[in-house]
Amino acid sequence: MNLLLLEPHEVDADGRAQVVGPALVHVREVLGKGEGATLRVGVRGGQWGSAVVLASTREAIDLRCTFDRDPPRKRPVELVLALPRPPVLRRLLQHATAMGVERIVLCHSARVEKSYWGSPALHPDEIDANVRLGLEQSCDTVSPVVDTRQRLRPFIEDELAGRGDTRRIVADPSGGVACPSDVEGRVLVAIGPEGGWVPFELELFDAAGFERVHLGTRILRVETAVVAALARIGLG
Amino acid sequence: MNLLLLEPHEVDADGRAQVVGPALVHVREVLGKGEGATLRVGVRGGQWGSAVVLASTREAIDLRCTFDRDPPRKRPVELVLALPRPPVLRRLLQHATAMGVERIVLCHSARVEKSYWGSPALHPDEIDANVRLGLEQSCDTVSPVVDTRQRLRPFIEDELAGRGDTRRIVADPSGGVACPSDVEGRVLVAIGPEGGWVPFELELFDAAGFERVHLGTRILRVETAVVAALARIGLG
Repeated sequence: MNLLLLEPHEVDADGRAQVVGPALVHVREVLGKGEGATLRVGVRGGQWGSAVVLASTREAIDLRCTFDRDPPRKRPVELVLALPRPPVLRRLLQHATAMGVERIVLCHSARVEKSYWGSPALHPDEIDANVRLGLEQSCDTVSPVVDTRQRLRPFIEDELAGRGDTRRIVADPSGGVACPSDVEGRVLVAIGPEGGWVPFELELFDAAGFERVHLGTRILRVETAVVAALARIGLG
Repeated sequence: MNLLLLEPHEVDADGRAQVVGPALVHVREVLGKGEGATLRVGVRGGQWGSAVVLASTREAIDLRCTFDRDPPRKRPVELVLALPRPPVLRRLLQHATAMGVERIVLCHSARVEKSYWGSPALHPDEIDANVRLGLEQSCDTVSPVVDTRQRLRPFIEDELAGRGDTRRIVADPSGGVACPSDVEGRVLVAIGPEGGWVPFELELFDAAGFERVHLGTRILRVETAVVAALARIGLG
């Protein structure tokens, strides 16, 4: 945690805030911040800055916060991700948020196990908890949009095909060129499940104007592939 | 697992092999391969190809293997990594192996907790187990070299400084330029611990001819940073 993220209702008009619950334990035990110490704090959706610990007990920590810095800009990148298995989803929400992705769309694919759609990892509170970890890692305060699309074909044909203002790439070993690096402008990048997109899905992406790109000759795990593709497309 | 990796002693001169233990469970339960099925197999340090399941019981699976493909080439990349906490180390050994790194050197740094050096994750058997997962992911058979260096200064001054044939980069937010992409030739890339290298360490890298490069304005976790840097440097 490089930044303690507070919700707007947790901070009063004078910048006073009280920290309780798991964040309290983290600040006291992990960061070892006691009375008089300073730490980085941010307000969800707003600015960030520093806070002084006014008082620290086992029940609560009182902070006086000064918010004077804007959050880092999001990258104009949208990630379309075939829903991974829950532990990988949790980590990828953290990675992609920390890397400044603007929007994450979790979609279905033939090789996604249907049971994943019933996982608690998709509950809004749990998605938010992992997004929050990504924000606190990267000193950001603004969550990416996280959407789900359980029907891939209408999503590609009706929503993605019309995005003429956006460079669209789909990662697949069949791609004839390497994933480009340092791309200018808006990018939409689609990463398949373990085992890859099936041919029919790749044809849908082709028809929607996606370029097929590869990530090298080696078969990477989804978690590795997502970070690799985002890092090549650009650094936030 | 995209490839079942066998040790040379497990395969006889006719290509017959018997699979027992955890690999047996994986082939039977996870991959669901029964009699007559085929799967990808490789011999540690040698070629890979396919195998037919001749017989499958709860005790053993008998395979007839044909090895006719060379493993993918390693990338001429060496990763110098400040020893991360054990769970991150395990995953990073898998990621870096799958991405085809030739050598991984785990080194000390002021912000590495000394206790990490006593972790079971550093036992050769456990390092090998994670390397193996990376090989099986990427259909490779040749392990990267994994070394440890508990004294950073002599390692940088005596071993790394003289590597004039190799482009040397160290990732740090203070870097004036972004991590380069698609670098030709040999590369040595150094990634610090959570919290980063300390100034003294960066000066050692400077003196040894390392270029300081950044990975964007956001603070990334070590796991994200390693994959991001390797993907930018090149795709195997």
